[in-house]
Amino acid sequence: MIKQSVGIVETKYYTIDKNIKLESGEEFGPITVAYETYGRLNGKKDNAILVLHALTGDAHAAGYHSEKDIKPGWWNDMIGPGKAFDTDKYFIISSNMLGGCKGTTGPSSINPLTGKAYGIEFPVITIEDTVKVQKELINYLGVKKLLSVAGGSMGGMQALMWAISYPEMVESAILIATTSKLSAQGIAFNAVGRNAIISDPDWQNGNYYDKENKPDRGLSIARMVGHITYLCEEAMHKKFGRKLQNKTKPDFTMDIDFQVESYLQHQGEVFVDRFDANSYLYITKAVDYFDLSGKYGSLEEAFKHTNAKFLIMSFTSDWLFPTSQSKEMVNALVHANKDVSFCEIESPCGHDAFLLEFETQTNIIKSFLKDVDNE
Amino acid sequence: MIKQSVGIVETKYYTIDKNIKLESGEEFGPITVAYETYGRLNGKKDNAILVLHALTGDAHAAGYHSEKDIKPGWWNDMIGPGKAFDTDKYFIISSNMLGGCKGTTGPSSINPLTGKAYGIEFPVITIEDTVKVQKELINYLGVKKLLSVAGGSMGGMQALMWAISYPEMVESAILIATTSKLSAQGIAFNAVGRNAIISDPDWQNGNYYDKENKPDRGLSIARMVGHITYLCEEAMHKKFGRKLQNKTKPDFTMDIDFQVESYLQHQGEVFVDRFDANSYLYITKAVDYFDLSGKYGSLEEAFKHTNAKFLIMSFTSDWLFPTSQSKEMVNALVHANKDVSFCEIESPCGHDAFLLEFETQTNIIKSFLKDVDNE
Repeated sequence: MIKQSVGIVETKYYTIDKNIKLESGEEFGPITVAYETYGRLNGKKDNAILVLHALTGDAHAAGYHSEKDIKPGWWNDMIGPGKAFDTDKYFIISSNMLGGCKGTTGPSSINPLTGKAYGIEFPVITIEDTVKVQKELINYLGVKKLLSVAGGSMGGMQALMWAISYPEMVESAILIATTSKLSAQGIAFNAVGRNAIISDPDWQNGNYYDKENKPDRGLSIARMVGHITYLCEEAMHKKFGRKLQNKTKPDFTMDIDFQVESYLQHQGEVFVDRFDANSYLYITKAVDYFDLSGKYGSLEEAFKHTNAKFLIMSFTSDWLFPTSQSKEMVNALVHANKDVSFCEIESPCGHDAFLLEFETQTNIIKSFLKDVDNE
Repeated sequence: MIKQSVGIVETKYYTIDKNIKLESGEEFGPITVAYETYGRLNGKKDNAILVLHALTGDAHAAGYHSEKDIKPGWWNDMIGPGKAFDTDKYFIISSNMLGGCKGTTGPSSINPLTGKAYGIEFPVITIEDTVKVQKELINYLGVKKLLSVAGGSMGGMQALMWAISYPEMVESAILIATTSKLSAQGIAFNAVGRNAIISDPDWQNGNYYDKENKPDRGLSIARMVGHITYLCEEAMHKKFGRKLQNKTKPDFTMDIDFQVESYLQHQGEVFVDRFDANSYLYITKAVDYFDLSGKYGSLEEAFKHTNAKFLIMSFTSDWLFPTSQSKEMVNALVHANKDVSFCEIESPCGHDAFLLEFETQTNIIKSFLKDVDNE
């Protein structure tokens, strides 16, 4: 039952035919938003849940795009009949982030004024901006109030921003493996990734879309760095240890010796086929900028006007957004007299646990949503 | 007193005029070794201590190369009159590692057979190989037995290897912020660095020495990644937090916003002036290969024939070679009935603590060496 899928789904598109005022002050538009929905909006329109993707995710959160499709959406284990986000009960909405490369307007989209891809003419965007764009989509779908906004990692940042920006529209927020501000170490890892892309000669100042080569090498390095932060030492040890790749002893050459090297290189190589280097620059920048206490003076102040019931989950082995950063949010919410539940889940999967530990998450989320739904 | 320096020092060179049999089986030579010494070898020749540098270090461990020199050697706080390695008592030897680029033969050295730099024709080397080369230097200096071998990080790996390879020559070993084998995560970070170098078009398959450009961009990225692992989240938070670089608010451009970005980029930029990209490939590979339990069947077995008294020190915030990896060695030494002292030092400095926390280290090392010296 829990393994059932929402079946064949389709990515849809909605174009906001007006300018959106970005956090930078710039007016930007038109913006097309790629989105998918699963389940049905009920008559009262009070069963909608918005799920928000992480750094390199997309609108395709559940189900399959065709009968031949081997890989389902990125949160297929969590969204579907009887699952955490139960499509028998809820109307699930998932959209691709502003600045992305999976259907929503981003640097690889055509600028209608020039007829060419935006490249680095695309405006610098923030988590608040992408949430503003999502709100237009939610309005368009006829939803006045979201039963919940939910996401892991950068998805959690967006869920936080939703609860703060549109308190009247958010009944509950599920924040998983996330943080209220990116740490210096987090910025550092993103900076290395961006440097790798920008220093690739094929980046060509971002104007590579009509060129023969794109900055695959730089983007691949960026992905490798990122991937290390999504796992943890324990997970890497269990998965690879010091096992050699297709050899029984080191061969004392400069070739790949260890499985972990081969795995990372593979992750880098396949990533360049599905992601745009400029989008990587813009989205990591949006994540770097994310800092609720910086923006509102304090975290307590940031949460002051929220009306949502909060569920915060962290994972023991997540060192990118460790439990301490979740507890900071919990404390601020408690001090702001908000309704907050918190759970640290024991997991050896590192930051990626929000994509893997679906059973524990399912139990907790089901019970939380039941409470929210009954209120 | 503790701040006194050894004064002006000079790097000397010794050439081993025979082939050395490397761990790979390859015979390699001649090898020139760059080294420095501080203090005086006593009449009994029993006061010599070999200090061993980390990944990007060199033979210049203490003192200054000229009156105008601003920066002293890398362990100047630890080596000198009255210091941890007290040059009033001990004769300190420091040499540059095989495969390096600071005077000891490495990929940037001229291959006498071709008259051109070795490049990637240089043989793949290991920690055991570099220790073998050091032994030739120690023989040449007329030292039969070392009072101690000491090093942090990769220097600690070499000290470990000394105690195991030449048990009759090593009275004590000081192992700081090190490990008996590189973890999957450690290999992963090194692999990203190597990939960044190799995927830089200016690497030119390692033959860049007589070309206009060298792989500065790739080497710089490798250094940035490495640098993140030498600090820790806490250290980065204290040092930079989310402070902006030369601006009071984010300017929503693709330029550098945060101090931590600027710092890392600077670290990358200055590194390329002092280090050779091919040496970085070879030395990280040697570190990846380091695995005592893999080599000897178990860690206990590796230590079985050692005669040294061991001092092992780790730092609370070191996540590259965490305390758990030091404890593994301590346990194995205890099980092998060896004499071992262990101390975990409280420090917010991350892995780099072995280069920074000199006061605590000094107290512990002085007391340890006094014990060893009196036996």
